[in-house]
Order: sequence, then C-alpha cells, then structure tokens
Amino acid sequence: MRTDRSSDSIRKISITRNYIIYPEGSVLIEIGNTKVICNATVEENVPNFLKNSGKGWLTAEYSMLPCATHKRNRRDISSLKLNSRAVEIQRLIGRSLRSALDLEMLGERTINIDCDVIQADGGTRCASITGGFIALHDAISKLSRNGLITKNPIKNFVAAVSAGIVDGEICLDLAYEEDSKAEVDMNFVMNDKLDFIEIQGTAENGAFSRETMNEMMDLASEGISKIINIQKNSIGDNF
Amino acid sequence: MRTDRSSDSIRKISITRNYIIYPEGSVLIEIGNTKVICNATVEENVPNFLKNSGKGWLTAEYSMLPCATHKRNRRDISSLKLNSRAVEIQRLIGRSLRSALDLEMLGERTINIDCDVIQADGGTRCASITGGFIALHDAISKLSRNGLITKNPIKNFVAAVSAGIVDGEICLDLAYEEDSKAEVDMNFVMNDKLDFIEIQGTAENGAFSRETMNEMMDLASEGISKIINIQKNSIGDNF
Amino acid sequence: MRTDRSSDSIRKISITRNYIIYPEGSVLIEIGNTKVICNATVEENVPNFLKNSGKGWLTAEYSMLPCATHKRNRRDISSLKLNSRAVEIQRLIGRSLRSALDLEMLGERTINIDCDVIQADGGTRCASITGGFIALHDAISKLSRNGLITKNPIKNFVAAVSAGIVDGEICLDLAYEEDSKAEVDMNFVMNDKLDFIEIQGTAENGAFSRETMNEMMDLASEGISKIINIQKNSIGDNF
Amino acid sequence: MRTDRSSDSIRKISITRNYIIYPEGSVLIEIGNTKVICNATVEENVPNFLKNSGKGWLTAEYSMLPCATHKRNRRDISSLKLNSRAVEIQRLIGRSLRSALDLEMLGERTINIDCDVIQADGGTRCASITGGFIALHDAISKLSRNGLITKNPIKNFVAAVSAGIVDGEICLDLAYEEDSKAEVDMNFVMNDKLDFIEIQGTAENGAFSRETMNEMMDLASEGISKIINIQKNSIGDNF
Amino acid sequence: MRTDRSSDSIRKISITRNYIIYPEGSVLIEIGNTKVICNATVEENVPNFLKNSGKGWLTAEYSMLPCATHKRNRRDISSLKLNSRAVEIQRLIGRSLRSALDLEMLGERTINIDCDVIQADGGTRCASITGGFIALHDAISKLSRNGLITKNPIKNFVAAVSAGIVDGEICLDLAYEEDSKAEVDMNFVMNDKLDFIEIQGTAENGAFSRETMNEMMDLASEGISKIINIQKNSIGDNF
Amino acid sequence: MRTDRSSDSIRKISITRNYIIYPEGSVLIEIGNTKVICNATVEENVPNFLKNSGKGWLTAEYSMLPCATHKRNRRDISSLKLNSRAVEIQRLIGRSLRSALDLEMLGERTINIDCDVIQADGGTRCASITGGFIALHDAISKLSRNGLITKNPIKNFVAAVSAGIVDGEICLDLAYEEDSKAEVDMNFVMNDKLDFIEIQGTAENGAFSRETMNEMMDLASEGISKIINIQKNSIGDNF
Repeated sequence: MRTDRSSDSIRKISITRNYIIYPEGSVLIEIGNTKVICNATVEENVPNFLKNSGKGWLTAEYSMLPCATHKRNRRDISSLKLNSRAVEIQRLIGRSLRSALDLEMLGERTINIDCDVIQADGGTRCASITGGFIALHDAISKLSRNGLITKNPIKNFVAAVSAGIVDGEICLDLAYEEDSKAEVDMNFVMNDKLDFIEIQGTAENGAFSRETMNEMMDLASEGISKIINIQKNSIGDNF
Repeated sequence: MRTDRSSDSIRKISITRNYIIYPEGSVLIEIGNTKVICNATVEENVPNFLKNSGKGWLTAEYSMLPCATHKRNRRDISSLKLNSRAVEIQRLIGRSLRSALDLEMLGERTINIDCDVIQADGGTRCASITGGFIALHDAISKLSRNGLITKNPIKNFVAAVSAGIVDGEICLDLAYEEDSKAEVDMNFVMNDKLDFIEIQGTAENGAFSRETMNEMMDLASEGISKIINIQKNSIGDNF
Repeated sequence: MRTDRSSDSIRKISITRNYIIYPEGSVLIEIGNTKVICNATVEENVPNFLKNSGKGWLTAEYSMLPCATHKRNRRDISSLKLNSRAVEIQRLIGRSLRSALDLEMLGERTINIDCDVIQADGGTRCASITGGFIALHDAISKLSRNGLITKNPIKNFVAAVSAGIVDGEICLDLAYEEDSKAEVDMNFVMNDKLDFIEIQGTAENGAFSRETMNEMMDLASEGISKIINIQKNSIGDNF
Repeated sequence: MRTDRSSDSIRKISITRNYIIYPEGSVLIEIGNTKVICNATVEENVPNFLKNSGKGWLTAEYSMLPCATHKRNRRDISSLKLNSRAVEIQRLIGRSLRSALDLEMLGERTINIDCDVIQADGGTRCASITGGFIALHDAISKLSRNGLITKNPIKNFVAAVSAGIVDGEICLDLAYEEDSKAEVDMNFVMNDKLDFIEIQGTAENGAFSRETMNEMMDLASEGISKIINIQKNSIGDNF
Repeated sequence: MRTDRSSDSIRKISITRNYIIYPEGSVLIEIGNTKVICNATVEENVPNFLKNSGKGWLTAEYSMLPCATHKRNRRDISSLKLNSRAVEIQRLIGRSLRSALDLEMLGERTINIDCDVIQADGGTRCASITGGFIALHDAISKLSRNGLITKNPIKNFVAAVSAGIVDGEICLDLAYEEDSKAEVDMNFVMNDKLDFIEIQGTAENGAFSRETMNEMMDLASEGISKIINIQKNSIGDNF
Repeated sequence: MRTDRSSDSIRKISITRNYIIYPEGSVLIEIGNTKVICNATVEENVPNFLKNSGKGWLTAEYSMLPCATHKRNRRDISSLKLNSRAVEIQRLIGRSLRSALDLEMLGERTINIDCDVIQADGGTRCASITGGFIALHDAISKLSRNGLITKNPIKNFVAAVSAGIVDGEICLDLAYEEDSKAEVDMNFVMNDKLDFIEIQGTAENGAFSRETMNEMMDLASEGISKIINIQKNSIGDNF
C-alpha cells in the first residue's frame, strides 16, 4: 500500500524549459525521482519516403545514462546493439508525439525528440512523452518566431501516464518499486480532449478483466487531466 | 467497405502442426494470405537472471523473409541492425506467450518461439501469437511425453486478434490494405476466459474515444472466442 | 550402405512454382527432406560497377531458418555476423545462376535470388541452385510478359547435385547423415549440355585420386541429366 | 581577444555532489557553459589481466548527449561505431584518474567513471577529469564507510585544464569558440604537487616553439592550482 | 598470349622462413609479384566442439592490406563486415591445411594460420596455402623441439596452384591480368602423391567441357609437382 | 640499464622506399625490430566538410598484423570494434602529418596514410609518423610528376620519437621491454626547425616534474634531429 500518496494521485512534476542552450526546444522533466532531458531539434529534410510529399516527420530516440538505475547498465555501443526495451519505447514516443502534429503544416522538415534519462524511478516513457511534448512545443515556437512556419502545426496537447495493479490495488503513476511488482502495467497516451492516442498494457502474470481495464482508463483520464494542466502552466500563454 | 466478409468477421485460419521435423513444436499458421512458421524449441538452460531460481523462461524471435511483402526488404544482417518493428513485435510475442506458462512448473529451461513470416498480409504479430501458442503446446507435450515435466505448465489458451477503424468503420482482423489506411489499429491478446493479456493500440492520425475503445474490445472478445475454438479443434483432445 | 535407394540415384524432387504471391518468381523446392524457398525479385538498378554499362546483374542470398536443422541455430543478426558457410554458399549460387544469363540482354536491372532453407537434410546449396533457376526463369518470364525485355536472356538450364564418397562408396545426392561422414564431398553445377559451370569439392580427411574424381564426374552428369528433366517438366512449354 | 575574462583566468566552476542518487559517486560539474555528469560506480571484479593480482582497476567512458553541441550529433549506436574522438578522450580520462589511485590498496574491484556531457562549450575532457576525480573520491569514501577498504587508496588530487594559442595569444581554459580557432591546443593533467600526469597537445596548423611550451606549462600550473582549490572546497574536510 | 613465360609454366617462387620473430612459424612467400605473409601460431586450447575430444584444430584467416591492389580497398572494420571473398578464401585455406594434419597426433591445441597479402597479383589464395604449409611445418617443428608433441602430425605436403582458360588457351598459375579476363578459373589443392585435396573452379561466362577439365587437371598436377619441390628445398632436411 | 646502446641514442633506422608497387608512396620503415609498412594513396575527393573549400585532407589508418606482437591478437573485425589504442594512434598520425601540408596547395584531394605494423618492438606510432612522412613525400612527388599539383604543399619535415623514464633513467626511443616498464612515456612529433607539432605523454604510475619534462624535451630534440637527417638521406635531392 502506498504510504506517501493516495493510489489515485500522481507524483510531483517539475518542468524546466530551455534546459540546454543549443536545441530548438529543451526540457528537463522531473516526476518524483525520475529525471529526463527532452531535447527537440529541427532538421531541414525528411526521410526518403516523404521526399517531395510536402509533409514533415517527427522521430524520437530514447536512452538511459549508464548510471540512471540501481545497477549500472552497459552502453548500447559496447554491445553494438540498441537495447530492445529502448527500441520499443522510442517507437512509442515517436508515434505519440507525431499524433500531435499536422505534418503538412509542419512542411518538409524533421523534428528529432531526444529523451535521455538521467535518473530512472519508473514512468520514464511517460515522462519522455509529457516532457517531449513541451520540447516539441518550444521548437515549433522557434520555427514560428523565425518565420519558417506560419500556422501552428500542433493540433493538441499530448501527455502520458501509467496505471497498474499493485498488490491487488489499482494505482496511478507507478514508481519503480511499484512497477517492478505490478501484476498489470499500462501506459496511456492521451490528448487534452481525453481521447486516447496510444494504449499499451501488459499482464506478465495472468490476465486482467474488462472491469479492471475500465477502472484503469478512468484513473488515467483523471491523471492526464492533471498533467496537461501542469503542461499548460509551464507554457503559459505561449500556446 | 469490406466486400469479401463482414466487418466483424475474421479471415479463414488454417493451422498445420508438425510442419518442420526438427523442432519440438512446429506450426504453419495461415490467416487469409498471411503465412507464418512458428517453431518452438527447448533449451535446457535459462538466462543468467534466472539461474538457480527453479524457474524457466520463454523468449520469442520474429522475422520476415525478404520477399514476404510487396517490396523486397533487406535482411537485418545486411544493415547489422535488427529491424525496430521486429524488436517491438518479438517482445510482444514473448510477453504474451510467457503469460500462458507457470514458469516454476516449466523448471529451469527456456522455450524459444521462432516466428518467421513467409508471406505477410496484415496481422502477422497476431498470427505469430496464435500459432506460437500451438507450437508451445506441442513442445510442452513433447517434454511431458519424454518425462521431463510431470505437470502441465500451460495455464490457459492465448490468442490474438487485431481491430481497427477503417474508413470510419470498426473492423476485426485487418488485412494489409485495411491496416495501411486504418485510423486506429489495436492488437488484443486474450486468454480463454476472455481476459486481457496485452492491449496495444495506436492512433497515428488523431485520437479515439472511450466509446470506440469499448466497441473494439467487444469485437476483439468475439474474435478471440472464435480463434481459440479453432486452436482447440487443431489440438483435439491433447490439451 | 544406402538402404532406401541405390548409390547412383537422386532423392525425390518436388518443385512448387508461384509459392509466395509477391516475388516475380517463387519456388518451393523439396529434395527428400530438404526444403528451400527460392524467391526471385527484380530491381530496376544495378551495382555501381555496372552503372551505364548496359549490363544487368544477378545476386543471391542464402539463409537457414533457426530451426531448419537438428539443433536450433542462432540468427546471424544476434551475433552481428553473417554465417561464413552462408557467405560461401551464396557466392556459389550467385556465380552459378549468373552463368545462365546473357547480362546484356537482361539490361540494367538486378535479379535477387533469395534462398531460405526451411528444413535442411543435406544438399541445400544444390537445391538452392536447382530451385533458384526455376524462380529465375519465372521472373524472366514475367519481365517478358510485361514487355520489359524482348529477347530471352536465359542461355541454358542450370542445376546442381552433390556426389561424395561415403564408407568408401561413391554416392550421388548425399543426405545430411551421409554428408556428415563423407570422406569427399563435391558439388557440381552443370548446364543442359552437361558442361561444367562450377566444381567445388573437398576432402577433409585425406585426399582423393584422379580416378575417383572421374567417377564422381560421371555420376554427377547422370544426376544432372535427371534433374534438368524434372526442371523441364516443371516449367512445361514455357521456356 | 577575450572580452569576458583575462587570458590567464579560468571560467567559473561549479561542482554539485550527489547529483544522481544511484551511483557511489555522482557529480555535476559546470565550467562556464560546459556541463558534464560524472558518475563513479564500483564493480566487485576486475578485468581478466588482473584476476588474482590483488590489484584493482579504474576505467572511464565518455559520451556526449546528441544535443550537447550546436548541431545535433548522431548517437554512436546508430553508426555502430564508437566516436573516435570519444575513444581518445576516455582513454585519457582513464589513465589520468588511475594515476590518482594505489591500485593495490583499492583491492580487486573496478571503478567505472562515466562522463556524460550534457552541454559542451570547450574543455569537456578537462571537466570530465576534474569532476570525475570528485566522483571517484566520493565512491572511495562510500567504500570506506561501508568497511570495504581500510586505507585510502587515493594518492593525490587530479585536475585538468587546457591552454592554447588563440589569435597569437596564450590563453588558459579555452571555450569552444576559442578552441575552434586555436593554433595550438594543449591539455594538462596535474596533481596537487603540480607535477604532470599527462600532457597532450597538438598544433594542427604549423608548430610551436619550446618557449611557447614553457609559457603554456606556466599558465597551466597556475590554473590547476586554482582548480584543485575548488575541488578541495567542494569536498570539505572529507579527504 | 603469354609473352613472359610459357602457358604451362609457373612464376618464380621465393620462400623466406622465419620472417617475423614472434610466431611459431612465419613465412614470406612471393610468387611473381604476389607477396603474402603466412604466420602460424599455436594456442593451447580448441574450439568448444572439440573440448575433451583429444583432437586439435587448424583455422585460417586471410586478409589483404588496403594497398595490396591497384585501387586502395577499405578495411573490413570500416564497414563492420568481413569481406565475403576473404571469408570464402579463408575457409578454403583452413580446410586445405587441416587435411595435412593428423588432428589426434596434434593433441588439443589450435594452429592459427594468418595469411596477410602485402601485394596481390593473382593467385593469393594458392600462395597462402603453399606458404601457409611451410609456416605450419615450422610451427609443428617448434612444438616438437619443445617436447610438446612426440610424433609428427603432418601427413603430407600440401600446395595449391591455379589453372584457367585465357583467350582460349589453358594456362597455369594465372597472374592478375590473366585472371581478370579468364573464361574459367580453377584452383587445385593437392598433396605430394598428386591426389586432390580441394578442387574449386568456376566459369563465370559460359561453361567448360569434361575435356577441358581433364587438361586443367593434367596441368595442375605438373605445377603442383614443381611447387612441392620448391617447398621441399625450402625446408631442407627438416621434414 | 641499457646494454646495447646509450640511453640517449636511437635504434638503427632503415627506410625502404617503393616497397609496394601500387600505392603512390610506399615505405617499409624498420627501427630496431619494429617494422611498419607505410603506404600513401591519393583519392580525388575530400570529406563532406571540405567539399568546395578548395582544400585537401590527409587521414591515417593504423593497424597491427595479428602476429606482430609476442602474443597473437584477434583482428578488429572479429570483435567488430576498432581497437581503441589504434584509434588513438591513427588520430595522432593524421594530425601530425596533416601539419606538414599546406592543404590549399594540395587542392581538393585526400591522402590516405596506411600504417600496418608487421612486427612491433616499441615505438610503432613514432615509426608510422617518420615512415609515413616519406610515403607522403613520395605520393606528393608523384602528383607533381603527373602535373596534378604545381607547387609543393609540403611545408616541412615531420618525424617522431619517444622518450621515457625507465628504472629512473631518462631514455630515448624506447623498445618494447623498456616501454612496458617505463614510469613515464612521451611521444614527441617535431619538424625540422625542432618546433613541436604534437606532445603526448603519460605517467601511469605517479607523476613527473617540470625538470624531467625539460630533460625529455632536450633528448627528443636531439633524437628528432638525427631522424630527420636519416629521412633526408633517404629522399636524396628529391625534396
């Protein structure tokens, strides 16, 4: 049973904008003990399959510093293989943030979202999406200030939160210790209308019922609502 | 609009057991034009993190032959990188089939599920899970016949099906052409109690409502129910 | 001593054309228990060294599914190295089938021959060449039907067979068990005039005399003659 | 000509200890706009060549986040090659910090120093050594507090600073803009007796005289003296 | 037509023993302008499949310096792929020299034959085998002198030579210019009884008759006979 | 204590020009038992960052044959990683020889310096630079003879030598046995005015004083002076 907060509450979120000076958008997001640097950079070209399409693209990369977890992890380059968990996560981040964009309004350019986990305590993929959205917003603002785009290609806010069943209880925003013993672990990516962008969940041991799914969706909606408010406060009137 | 079948129907499924002579379990599964060879082999050791735990493991690999799709794909080895879509899929297959097993009853051995797509027409990950379950079953049966295990570690049936929104209509079991234009694309992995093992869905363009989610869950339950019946017929009294 | 067939006989060969629906040519060849999928695809460009030469090219790739042999093999991508035996074999397949083509008549395009061994019981490189030739023929026919070439660039049939010395006896078309204990193991690639395209043989233990070589060449000629007849029957009047 | 500080002065240095919660030593070092996270972790084994020698080891890894520089850099893993500049730098860091240790007093364990550059503005290798030394100190302190070592294996302080010739003038502690146009660029690693541990310098255009070398050594000694004072203040009485 | 020597003659061969001081056997072999360093080293263990078998092993590696040919070649490591021609050749060298050894008499140790081509002018694989045999001989002699083996495990001499059809004429020992326009190119590995160890030949354009094959075998036998004499002279009474 | 020569003397140097027939410049340099082949080749293009700059480039690669040292080393390609010591050395060679060139006079072409160590006995990086300079000179001469350049882009001679402290004594040009026990090991790259191009030194155990540094610089200047004389004699009047 959680002792530091209620099962339906999220951890403290802190968003530091303009964290690094070089990228077009740069955010340090802290959710409890989880800390992720989300940098958005703009490249004036697109992957081959979009050349001459008039459309832009967004892609994401996710990585953890070797010491971001309890036990040091080897760097990907030392095994010459991109960590398969990271592959799964960066595909999720890419799809999620791409859904926020009108790719035609963006024009033929690519936004790279680099999410580097400095310290991990559960929920790093959700933090990457939530923080990555702000970095994306700031990069788009910069394109706009520089006159490179005239209409805002951002269609809606995007945020993510986890929910799961821990010791039989449905909990929101799982920290690492909870996550590691969760029976069910789901990640919800949603927009500011509280519609779903991505749902991804798994029950490693056993299975979960339709009812449980409904309860988790309820909880996630409440959480996303709070998180998007925090995003809005962070951005101020800029959107 | 579908012309060859109703939007809530699944494609014809054919399961050929003992397809290859060497592996402990070997299945050719055909779902419409999608054809996947699912081979289950048994290794008498476990990954390091399970040594001396008394528990076994199940892992999966997924790959497509270069000519399995409309346009020939390069082999992973020629770019020295495992295709990132394949990474995501094989992690899904592994988690899904692992959920069918009591890993302590399995004992300290590893089941490898190799899913090789010979011909792809949508739904290859679902076909891999559905066919992989039969291969897993047959490998377990062989362990049992050989006296290596005494209790059946398989806890339940596992099958998977996709659902999505195509041209505004909710459809079950999407073929490639439907999938490539779907607004929402979800994959449901479920057991024979129709509880969820894994839910994975994404809306590349836009988002989808709670109602839509509910309808897709309804449709998926019906589909899984039919698919598990086909699995049961394929196995006969052996379970 | 062989019990199931005479030492100068070949195993049963079955050729299934149009096995996969996407490639221009697709063949499943079964020789005894050996099963190989041979797919031929056409690319409208050539390697750099042939650009603007007016000549085309043919290249081959050879791979085995992990469960194609008694003991599961790791995939190449997991060690980041292309299996060295496969390298040797795919170079042989490429040279052999290239010899069947008038590369100027083919024009500046590349034929890829993908040979994927589903089940291996000896003779997989020979099966790949024999089956690959039919896939090549079918791909060329399609180019011709589509008006992309006007003259047939195929100069002759190509087929391959192994011969070897097993327990002191010269045998044709070795199955795996024979091959693994053979003193000499040769592969002959020949055309329909029974001239040689490639000869490749080795004596891991000891050496073999000129006489033995002569006897193996005699046996191979007889075998190739039968195999090319089977190829011709498979194609019918199409050549 | 420098406008913000004199040519013989160093930039502002800020050292934040215990930056990340998991590693045994964790430091964020900021030198001007350069920011590096230096994490020291302890592994209870040694490389093969030291097994049963009674001696420990120290090794370092150096990397930059993709957005740490003006233009985004691709991650090493995407090219499957460790950046050759990083190889050179991490070998330098390893040799430099190893020189601070009595490897026999350390015992058969390995200290990993991970230097991850968050933001680069010149002098990242020097910052890594200077900050890495504090992380190393903190990791050793933790070993000592935990009773794993009884004598302090740290023999001396280690710090590093760059010197170079910019527009004909000898400057200390070059920022990126200076470094990129420097005629000579040297890095000095020294201890608290102001003896040399490593000297590494290069003149890409032309060469430099013995006199210039002497002046740079003078300047470096003064700089190191200040930097080691800052290190001492950061540690307090703990050493 | 050859102008510098008759079509049935071999080029001048020079064998320098003890070329490099460290390996157990070290030979520089020069055949015309082709120069190959062949080093034989001994490792006191065997590959896994031979552990506790009482048998030894021999393996070979073949590589060319980047500047060994007319146009500089990239190093394998820069593309992260072992050159496929080198793979084929080193497998040939390994099989050929292994055939010279009684692996049980060798005992559980591995001989590595490293063949590094310094300058290539055709026939590098044959030079590697011919020179590698002398390096192997010298390594075995050293094992014997050191009392590590008591019986000579070398069963016979091994040498190799190429033959081919150039401008319609059958030629022995092809130089690069001849090789590059040869209609047929065969490599013969033989022992001192003039029995065959390996035959490897290909007709890239067209095919060749049984008669041509016979003539090439005649020519190769004469060539091998001369080459083995040169090997014998090089070794002196030591064998 | 050195017995074969005085502590301030260099080993015997032998320079063989035109060693390999294909590259524009080719040198075998022997310094004591150290033997390095240095080949210089010219490519008529430049790296991307110099396209349309009017400037040329020089790059170096350094490698050791597997048997160049006491114990056989695995080839880089077998671990898919370029040896990190080699990375450091080839960067040093590249910077050092680049400093000899006026890159604008060279024009938009690239010189590749390949340094392949045949036999290593200490000082291989210095031998590579000293020998590489002669190969560079010869390649430039060839460009000049072929009318591709009209002014000599070589600004000065470049040579390198090591100095170190062995058993408390300062020594010049360390052989392997000395190097492996040296307390300090420095490499000096200098030109014919005896100015410094690169200084690289390290004290793995402990540190060294300013005085020691001065003495090593003195010794190095004397050594370089002798080595450049040998370079000049080797080239004759050609410069």
